[in-house]
Amino acid sequence: MRQEQRQMHLGVFVLGTGNHVAGWRLPGAADSFQNLSVAQQIARTAERGLFDLLFLGDGLSADPNAHPSFTARFEPITMLAALAATTTHVGLGATASTTYAEPYTVARLFASLDHLSGGRAAWNAVTTSGGQAAANFGRQHPPHGQRYEVAEEFIDVVRGLWDCWEDDAIVADRKTGRYIDAAKVHKLHHKGRFFEVEGPLNIGRCPQGQPVILQAGASEPGQEMAARSADVVFSVVQDLDEARAAYAALKERLPRHGRDPGEVAVLPGVMPVIGRTQEEALEKLDHLQSFVNSTNALSMLSNRLGQDMSAYPMDGPVPDLPLPDTSHGFARTMLAKARREGMTLRDLYNLTAAARGHWVICGTPASIADTLEEWFLGGAADGFNILPPYFPGGFDEFVDGVVPELQRRGLFRRAYRGRKLRDHLGLSRPARQHGTPT
Amino acid sequence: MRQEQRQMHLGVFVLGTGNHVAGWRLPGAADSFQNLSVAQQIARTAERGLFDLLFLGDGLSADPNAHPSFTARFEPITMLAALAATTTHVGLGATASTTYAEPYTVARLFASLDHLSGGRAAWNAVTTSGGQAAANFGRQHPPHGQRYEVAEEFIDVVRGLWDCWEDDAIVADRKTGRYIDAAKVHKLHHKGRFFEVEGPLNIGRCPQGQPVILQAGASEPGQEMAARSADVVFSVVQDLDEARAAYAALKERLPRHGRDPGEVAVLPGVMPVIGRTQEEALEKLDHLQSFVNSTNALSMLSNRLGQDMSAYPMDGPVPDLPLPDTSHGFARTMLAKARREGMTLRDLYNLTAAARGHWVICGTPASIADTLEEWFLGGAADGFNILPPYFPGGFDEFVDGVVPELQRRGLFRRAYRGRKLRDHLGLSRPARQHGTPT
Repeated sequence: MRQEQRQMHLGVFVLGTGNHVAGWRLPGAADSFQNLSVAQQIARTAERGLFDLLFLGDGLSADPNAHPSFTARFEPITMLAALAATTTHVGLGATASTTYAEPYTVARLFASLDHLSGGRAAWNAVTTSGGQAAANFGRQHPPHGQRYEVAEEFIDVVRGLWDCWEDDAIVADRKTGRYIDAAKVHKLHHKGRFFEVEGPLNIGRCPQGQPVILQAGASEPGQEMAARSADVVFSVVQDLDEARAAYAALKERLPRHGRDPGEVAVLPGVMPVIGRTQEEALEKLDHLQSFVNSTNALSMLSNRLGQDMSAYPMDGPVPDLPLPDTSHGFARTMLAKARREGMTLRDLYNLTAAARGHWVICGTPASIADTLEEWFLGGAADGFNILPPYFPGGFDEFVDGVVPELQRRGLFRRAYRGRKLRDHLGLSRPARQHGTPT
Repeated sequence: MRQEQRQMHLGVFVLGTGNHVAGWRLPGAADSFQNLSVAQQIARTAERGLFDLLFLGDGLSADPNAHPSFTARFEPITMLAALAATTTHVGLGATASTTYAEPYTVARLFASLDHLSGGRAAWNAVTTSGGQAAANFGRQHPPHGQRYEVAEEFIDVVRGLWDCWEDDAIVADRKTGRYIDAAKVHKLHHKGRFFEVEGPLNIGRCPQGQPVILQAGASEPGQEMAARSADVVFSVVQDLDEARAAYAALKERLPRHGRDPGEVAVLPGVMPVIGRTQEEALEKLDHLQSFVNSTNALSMLSNRLGQDMSAYPMDGPVPDLPLPDTSHGFARTMLAKARREGMTLRDLYNLTAAARGHWVICGTPASIADTLEEWFLGGAADGFNILPPYFPGGFDEFVDGVVPELQRRGLFRRAYRGRKLRDHLGLSRPARQHGTPT
């Protein structure tokens, strides 16, 4: 028997107005992130394309100068719950903050989503980078390092709560009237530095055992958190060498946490701009970039770099800046690229406007498949987090053009093999580890 | 033109294992509150019955001795979001705590549900009565009075956040590239005793303007909160005189808050046990009561009365107890009924097991319609919150038996007149009141 070729994993990053800041301005593009039918269409396309998961970011404040989908948006977990009812296979990943939420609440929401979807939930555990959120929660925004210390404990508590119920704790025996086997429902008794949580959770163990954990932080503590807890890592990289180095660095961390490098899928984010010819693709990108409005771009860039960039000359060099306290990963990647390529500040804001600092790839379905294959086989990725510049067209082009190319090369599945997200990712159902007898 | 008769409003209280503590033990009854297809079936039945809304309670802890649906349950807002995608008319009401959540989070969740459902969201704003929740959130449980002070401010903040966006703030002008009219997005600048929330919310104004507010607290501060903020009140009453008095008392409070008595619908909770004959109905109730297990019943009663009742003799009189700090309304209603009817403790726990202290009505569709009509026309109710003892059968019997009786009498709609919950309730879309210019 021929050994099966290693397969890519694909996620799609859903923003109702497209990932490109001005994607919504294209004729025919969706222009709202508050429209269920748009989200449903994206989800159907993701299932047609046999994607592992679709994925929603989140933020806890609104800035009218930011990306349109970051300003007026569905709350992610409600949106995914709605999609759970109208999809059957695709994984459903949402961001929830460890900085401005309670572990009991987050554990419930994702456990509930996992039950509602028949085992397709994933939690992107983030630390909230923007200090704007603090003002909506009446708190001081904690510094970067402490946010990660809180996040580590937060994740431990959530995973502990997910383990409170044994699989067969719900008996529902009509004859005897025994509904629950109380001996199989465990408290957590967590008393930590930041949280005290008694448990048990008020929902039974999930179809997946535990929902999948996603992670996207690229700073040192973010990488350490990913190595310790994540099943899938979304990385922010701009070229192959950098991606290879980041991939190797993360995989090397895993054994230190008693984990196998194969247990974590690393998916670089990439915005594909697709044409029938290379020229057509470049024209499309130029067309999108021509829509960029400098206020938005400057606001997004300032946000990514953690400081007001309006004081610097637009056509001068990118200044030498310290890493911000907000979002280390994006800033490091973008500043490195700017230095490498001798960019002006205008170049950098155009890059930010396009894909918020993610890699942009421009070409035909075949040339894009070539590049993805090179990265996938070249030790830089276990798959990709696709950021269509606009919906629905920009995603249709990937699913109808690039996915068949990947399938032809034996790099991507031709059918789902199971119904759960863990099935798509090749992850086994985790055994219960936490919880002590009540 | 004949003046149109005043119409009842109907809600259904959804618990996957039925409202009767042992309803799940009946052959054919659903036995899980973690099953989306059961919830979808209930929602379809609610729409077939032209109900105003379906409604979910909530709790923030799990007690294996409590009602099965209070122990292992869907998180309500995710469950309603899933139902939003598979229903078209019925209102979707969920409970969310003002004691253990953040107003920014709650405002987002319900605004998101309102957008997802096309204007069908309702928030049951509760103070969390059980101190068990405190241990899951690492906090001291605040005393009854303070919980209501927090709740009042919490509701104000949520309503203020819902008003941050003007209806036409999202412009999405493809030509000019202007996505948002920032002058129409307002901050809240709330600095209160318990909360500081800057705003704006990160989702546009809701299809309903504001989601509907439900309220169920029967204590003095609960009634005051209802009079100030609620659109629908779920009341707990056991007989007609008591219901009339409670109805009148609430309606009298409204003008003091500048509101018209017609603006608030009072819906007493009622568990209908339906037979083709009165005897059959009584047999059915006896059959259900025979399933009651004394541990559950005692635990539920102790919870409702706020103290451990296991020390008192089962067949002795109901002791004279002070009102608890947990849940005033239920305790007052139940203790009054016990005194009125000279109940033993066993009688009281049987009553609690049946409907957790709610009114139980047993009869044929016609006799039940008679009673509901008497209450509705007799100044005791604007409609009812139906608590089927088991699903799906116990709800089907009401929708297929009692609803047509009510329609024949001209007391209940024969078709929905709109798509939004406010349409069903006859409530206008509220004007924006809150928010100051950014």
